[in-house]
Amino acid sequence: MKLWQKATGSKQEVEQFTIGRDPEFDIILAPFDVLGSLAHAHMLTKIGLLTIEENEILQKGLKEIYFEIEQGKFSISPGVEDVHSQVEFLLTARYGEVGKKLHSGRSRNDQVLVDLKLYYRAAIREIVEVSQTLFDLLVELSSKHKNDLMPGYTHTQLAMPSSFGLWFGSFAEGLTEDLGLLKVAFDLSNKNPLGSAAGYGSSFPLDRTMTTELLGFADMHHNVINAQNSRGKTERTLAFAMAGISATLNRLATDVCLFMNQHFAFVSFPDDLTTGSSIMPHKKNPDVFELIRSKTNQIQGLSTTIGYLLTNMSTGYHRDLQLLKEEIFPGIEKLKSCLAMTTFMLKSIKVRQNILQDPFYKHVFSVEVVNDLVLKGAPFRDAYMQVGLEIEAGHFAPNQDQLNHTHEGSIGNLCLDEIKSKMDAILESYDFQLIDQKFLRLLS
Amino acid sequence: MKLWQKATGSKQEVEQFTIGRDPEFDIILAPFDVLGSLAHAHMLTKIGLLTIEENEILQKGLKEIYFEIEQGKFSISPGVEDVHSQVEFLLTARYGEVGKKLHSGRSRNDQVLVDLKLYYRAAIREIVEVSQTLFDLLVELSSKHKNDLMPGYTHTQLAMPSSFGLWFGSFAEGLTEDLGLLKVAFDLSNKNPLGSAAGYGSSFPLDRTMTTELLGFADMHHNVINAQNSRGKTERTLAFAMAGISATLNRLATDVCLFMNQHFAFVSFPDDLTTGSSIMPHKKNPDVFELIRSKTNQIQGLSTTIGYLLTNMSTGYHRDLQLLKEEIFPGIEKLKSCLAMTTFMLKSIKVRQNILQDPFYKHVFSVEVVNDLVLKGAPFRDAYMQVGLEIEAGHFAPNQDQLNHTHEGSIGNLCLDEIKSKMDAILESYDFQLIDQKFLRLLS
Amino acid sequence: MKLWQKATGSKQEVEQFTIGRDPEFDIILAPFDVLGSLAHAHMLTKIGLLTIEENEILQKGLKEIYFEIEQGKFSISPGVEDVHSQVEFLLTARYGEVGKKLHSGRSRNDQVLVDLKLYYRAAIREIVEVSQTLFDLLVELSSKHKNDLMPGYTHTQLAMPSSFGLWFGSFAEGLTEDLGLLKVAFDLSNKNPLGSAAGYGSSFPLDRTMTTELLGFADMHHNVINAQNSRGKTERTLAFAMAGISATLNRLATDVCLFMNQHFAFVSFPDDLTTGSSIMPHKKNPDVFELIRSKTNQIQGLSTTIGYLLTNMSTGYHRDLQLLKEEIFPGIEKLKSCLAMTTFMLKSIKVRQNILQDPFYKHVFSVEVVNDLVLKGAPFRDAYMQVGLEIEAGHFAPNQDQLNHTHEGSIGNLCLDEIKSKMDAILESYDFQLIDQKFLRLLS
Amino acid sequence: MKLWQKATGSKQEVEQFTIGRDPEFDIILAPFDVLGSLAHAHMLTKIGLLTIEENEILQKGLKEIYFEIEQGKFSISPGVEDVHSQVEFLLTARYGEVGKKLHSGRSRNDQVLVDLKLYYRAAIREIVEVSQTLFDLLVELSSKHKNDLMPGYTHTQLAMPSSFGLWFGSFAEGLTEDLGLLKVAFDLSNKNPLGSAAGYGSSFPLDRTMTTELLGFADMHHNVINAQNSRGKTERTLAFAMAGISATLNRLATDVCLFMNQHFAFVSFPDDLTTGSSIMPHKKNPDVFELIRSKTNQIQGLSTTIGYLLTNMSTGYHRDLQLLKEEIFPGIEKLKSCLAMTTFMLKSIKVRQNILQDPFYKHVFSVEVVNDLVLKGAPFRDAYMQVGLEIEAGHFAPNQDQLNHTHEGSIGNLCLDEIKSKMDAILESYDFQLIDQKFLRLLS
Repeated sequence: MKLWQKATGSKQEVEQFTIGRDPEFDIILAPFDVLGSLAHAHMLTKIGLLTIEENEILQKGLKEIYFEIEQGKFSISPGVEDVHSQVEFLLTARYGEVGKKLHSGRSRNDQVLVDLKLYYRAAIREIVEVSQTLFDLLVELSSKHKNDLMPGYTHTQLAMPSSFGLWFGSFAEGLTEDLGLLKVAFDLSNKNPLGSAAGYGSSFPLDRTMTTELLGFADMHHNVINAQNSRGKTERTLAFAMAGISATLNRLATDVCLFMNQHFAFVSFPDDLTTGSSIMPHKKNPDVFELIRSKTNQIQGLSTTIGYLLTNMSTGYHRDLQLLKEEIFPGIEKLKSCLAMTTFMLKSIKVRQNILQDPFYKHVFSVEVVNDLVLKGAPFRDAYMQVGLEIEAGHFAPNQDQLNHTHEGSIGNLCLDEIKSKMDAILESYDFQLIDQKFLRLLS
Repeated sequence: MKLWQKATGSKQEVEQFTIGRDPEFDIILAPFDVLGSLAHAHMLTKIGLLTIEENEILQKGLKEIYFEIEQGKFSISPGVEDVHSQVEFLLTARYGEVGKKLHSGRSRNDQVLVDLKLYYRAAIREIVEVSQTLFDLLVELSSKHKNDLMPGYTHTQLAMPSSFGLWFGSFAEGLTEDLGLLKVAFDLSNKNPLGSAAGYGSSFPLDRTMTTELLGFADMHHNVINAQNSRGKTERTLAFAMAGISATLNRLATDVCLFMNQHFAFVSFPDDLTTGSSIMPHKKNPDVFELIRSKTNQIQGLSTTIGYLLTNMSTGYHRDLQLLKEEIFPGIEKLKSCLAMTTFMLKSIKVRQNILQDPFYKHVFSVEVVNDLVLKGAPFRDAYMQVGLEIEAGHFAPNQDQLNHTHEGSIGNLCLDEIKSKMDAILESYDFQLIDQKFLRLLS
Repeated sequence: MKLWQKATGSKQEVEQFTIGRDPEFDIILAPFDVLGSLAHAHMLTKIGLLTIEENEILQKGLKEIYFEIEQGKFSISPGVEDVHSQVEFLLTARYGEVGKKLHSGRSRNDQVLVDLKLYYRAAIREIVEVSQTLFDLLVELSSKHKNDLMPGYTHTQLAMPSSFGLWFGSFAEGLTEDLGLLKVAFDLSNKNPLGSAAGYGSSFPLDRTMTTELLGFADMHHNVINAQNSRGKTERTLAFAMAGISATLNRLATDVCLFMNQHFAFVSFPDDLTTGSSIMPHKKNPDVFELIRSKTNQIQGLSTTIGYLLTNMSTGYHRDLQLLKEEIFPGIEKLKSCLAMTTFMLKSIKVRQNILQDPFYKHVFSVEVVNDLVLKGAPFRDAYMQVGLEIEAGHFAPNQDQLNHTHEGSIGNLCLDEIKSKMDAILESYDFQLIDQKFLRLLS
Repeated sequence: MKLWQKATGSKQEVEQFTIGRDPEFDIILAPFDVLGSLAHAHMLTKIGLLTIEENEILQKGLKEIYFEIEQGKFSISPGVEDVHSQVEFLLTARYGEVGKKLHSGRSRNDQVLVDLKLYYRAAIREIVEVSQTLFDLLVELSSKHKNDLMPGYTHTQLAMPSSFGLWFGSFAEGLTEDLGLLKVAFDLSNKNPLGSAAGYGSSFPLDRTMTTELLGFADMHHNVINAQNSRGKTERTLAFAMAGISATLNRLATDVCLFMNQHFAFVSFPDDLTTGSSIMPHKKNPDVFELIRSKTNQIQGLSTTIGYLLTNMSTGYHRDLQLLKEEIFPGIEKLKSCLAMTTFMLKSIKVRQNILQDPFYKHVFSVEVVNDLVLKGAPFRDAYMQVGLEIEAGHFAPNQDQLNHTHEGSIGNLCLDEIKSKMDAILESYDFQLIDQKFLRLLS
């Protein structure tokens, strides 16, 4: 009998309703929870709430748990509320009363907040890395196909000559911009909330600068109410950034689905990467790209739902915030897989050669011809007139072979080095190495 | 090593990416898939594509599978693509070649569509039933608390007298309206898409009227392209309807969270239904209602994501549509649990008595006093002036005990019978019994 | 100097901020405000708050104003707050103190609510009428082009034969379903909120049944809190319904933009209805359809903004509700113009003949050939095999001329009569004539 | 007769439909259009497409127009299509054929794009400036009220002591983070798209580096397709950033509306800044804050609509992009007015003194007392127990006067200097002065 059928309800059903999907998310947060506790214990020691000996025991116990988590040996025991309780429970079971001292000077609110910030920081790093792989491939493809011309469309109508080099390169440069937006989400995740307690601070003389430094945070949310309010703001900003990358992938996937259509037939993929039909040999369905298109739409929808969760809400923690995890955690995995799948598929993309030599495309060269005449000295208006008349008379026969585009970012001058420099600058702005060093120190 | 880390990819990873969460959803669709096949087989027999004997075998085999599903004995074998294939695979394994004949005259597209329609119809029925339970309780509470006055607010400011009878009753009537919107989603789910094949019909002389009748559909999507386009439209409409109910629950939960605040302290719940704090005995956190508020926000967000999946897309099936299930299936479960939890909690609600007798609330009676003077013959303007002066002078001392509101829908005349009639009319408009009869006949 | 530059602010700037765009919307509401007052005055007379003589004066004065509005002679005088005040002001200026008696027993909240309901009812009627015009044209085009074959696509890939008859017809049937959703918004608009006052009713013995009847409402919101809560719910439901119609138009426009692309070249429009280019004679940009596509996207976005305005808000009027008008009023105009423009453009659509006779499309006939063999007695599996081998060997040469689709809703059996019946049923369910009669009586 | 009524349509109605609200937006873009042309003409001269003399004439003519715009003397003549045409028309009318040479090497697409980028840059600057004014006031209020305690809430339940200093300060620090997100929108607006022509570059040897430098852009979109794709991306990113600021204002407004409620009565405003009622003297409705709350909700909704406009769309200009202006332009004005109004209102806010001294609030001090005992040497567990028993027994009587919170960001250590430094760093990162200098040089 299901809950909704009779709505008899019970304390157990209430529990199920309130816990929701937290157990699966808590396992993800576990290593970060331990890292936060390692730093917190050092700080409590400094301000005299733990003795040096107590801290040594806690550090030892926490590191043990950390490595158990790494080895997949950690789980939340039945009846234990959450990851925070499980860690405290293990410490106390193994090392006695000292385990219970760890919670001084913090509340669940800032503890889960610091876990989340550390997790988001790590998740963003993974997004950056898989984006970088895609970026490198796009640059490589752009360079490889710089001479493969294709038509460019405006209003979904044939317009002017373009090239696959230009097309691939556009997504490469687009990604550098998207990672600029992601950096803001990283910066927000890279601020220490620890010490904000339930959102109103503590009467203990906490040293928040110390935990900030130990955990490799670039900064702290100083104001403790603002630290608590960053729950939600961080997720919304991350959702915006993920929407940005998603929009770029969505456009690429939309283009591919169109270009695979038989009327275009500009690109193709090996048979085993498309979905065929036993009866229709002409069918090579672009299922993977259709799913990239649609999954990136799901990610773009996240920020709306997050907006509903947060708007018109007064200052202070509300249980509503718990559900942010349900939105953002799966969204992160989805985005990474879309980035990886785009990369995987593009490795096998085949581009049709010599598309524009077909007379079908001759009109896309009309502006070229006009410009040529202008460069040779003809007044613009006369050049236009002449070409227009040729087209009308059916005499228009441009050279469909060669283009002379030379300016920055054009078909003949793709500026891939400049675009790579943009990516390098973005990557440098993320100081992942510092975080590695800090964590290594905490765990050593 | 995770996929995104190296993006090496493989056919297996592509498979994982494209299958997504379908296996869990396919189990939900399984009984409906069998029902659809039972009807399809009868129809194929009528038009001569199956012999009577073949049909008898298929009917027998399909019913066996149906009861295995009911008993939880059905699963999708490794390597089998989906529920449709599994059913066909079982039939063929058990009864030979005849199993393969079942797919004549339909495609995956209309097969999954009919499964979905049947599932949505059943899911909507469950939503209606659990809504009805909540409705009955709200009416009961409204009646029980018809004399328990409380202040009414506008602009979040104390305004005029209200009552708990009025407040509970407002959600009851609201639900009847929400179920009106849900009825449209039901009607859309109650149209037969079978026979539309891949969205362009079939050259077989299918009898779509027959399957419409056998499956208890009230109508069919006649135009086969429109049938295919109803994929997405049905889900969007259902998402709208779920958003409507959600908005009502969201407001109720928002009110409860506010009224549980200590400044108000209008309503309370037993300790074991609130979340306390070991140190702060004054704390009775309304976690369940906070989660109802936020889960109903998640449901309200669904239609945006669904909108993104569908917009700017040309006619015809796209793989994107697969992801509608990821949005709507969990949303249905979430809504049912929110309805059930609201019911469960409200069964234990305690309402504070005699709130308005506190002089703190005297100003909410000012309009009453003015109206009384008017009814006794004073010109409106004079009455206003007189009461205004009393208030300013601090002499205002209204009777805070009694109200004489008599018109339809007011504190003294809650019109619960009229509201119950509205619900009855809605419930009658859903002909669930007919569906039961049809299914019984198919399965007998 | 603009406000934001120095933020010096002033009472006047506050006023500007709070009034917003209301003056332009108030003019739209004006006739409905007068109609509501005509009914309210009759009711006040019945319950003894107005004498028969007073009512006669008010009826006369209100009708004068109504006809001034109709003739465009009505405006809101400087310094007068809103339409309600302007009407009262005119009455008082012309007929003395009796003008001030009209406001007894109602508040601004239920007065504007009844205005809005009456306006939405009228606006929905206009949407229905312009939808009907489009529907009629779609049915006509479907019938006219029933023999004009075109390819059908799945996954944006060539799939099976379709026809323009089928394609036009799909939108016709789609519209009937969309108008079903719109009917729910109509029903919600067709409930009388008058008498709910500020949302908590009145101590006057109002006769709400009487105003319900006089204004031609099909029902009332009985519970007065629920009546007030219908502000927002009505708009959200209307936004949902407008999104439904918009999605249908969006798909049609998306298809047209694709089919006008030179690779397809399935449909075209006269030169003066497309946007050309002085230099590129091949360019016929589908600007009107691109704008229909995007304007229908704007309309689809409305419900999210409305959702934000309403969610997490406690019971009772909030000033926030004022902004619903800014969202929904322009949305209504936009939808009507998109419907009208779609109709206008489709009147001139030219469909390419004999598309499928091109060998380019031969593979879309493969399922036909298989089915033919099956109907002639071949086992399915053998038929599949045979056709598959022919295709592989390059011998596949189907008859690309004729199709024999006969089942309900297929190319050869478009069921336009059934689809027209659906539209007729929807149209009948709206009882616009009754409303006309009621208004005529009020105004006579 | 309105368009939708008969759908007769006409070329003129099509024009109205396609032009939409562009004329009002074009006036806003006008000065930026001229600035773009000033730079473009210099560049054309450098690459030999204009003579030095021609350029001198154009520079003179364009500056004349710029100053006419500044003086409000510019308008778009009837029959002229848009601002670009109007400028060209004026130049040609005044200076002859040379006016027509200006359009060489650019298309409408990159011309409007550069106008938009320059406008967004300027609009963002205004948002920054009005945010800064609000920030300064928030810091001032935080400092002024650092000793005014108030309760802090979690779950909308009384939780722990807070202060007005902390509360005001939270929004100040929040704004610094929001401006970090806005900076990304600025960076995206600060990239030159000129030279991308219709999105596929030009065969003229344009010098895009030169126009980048002349217009004070920090960078260019190198890839020309990416430049065109930045239409939409720029608006979406700006909408995200505006949503971020809006969410902060929304929370502040939500708090104020709650704190003005009579049960709280924590803050108040002068009578002339609230909306009263002639009959209920207790009513001081927070209309301005309700409208800030709701207008910021409208702004938060923008990115959803923009998402609809952009998703599932292939590479290349689509007319759909025109409508971005309808979304973002009014949104910018709305956000600036919300920021200004928040500032204006907060200048007059009155904070209630000594709130926490009321015994009603004594339980919020429980954690303080426990922590005190711990700091004096009691084991945590014993301290908890002792206080818990006191509360249960009704003896709990904490000192409700004084708090000793000392850590970073707590009640006793607001870190306003650190927060101000964050704002200073953000402000410095915007190099508005450089832009001023560049424009001055172009116009001199």
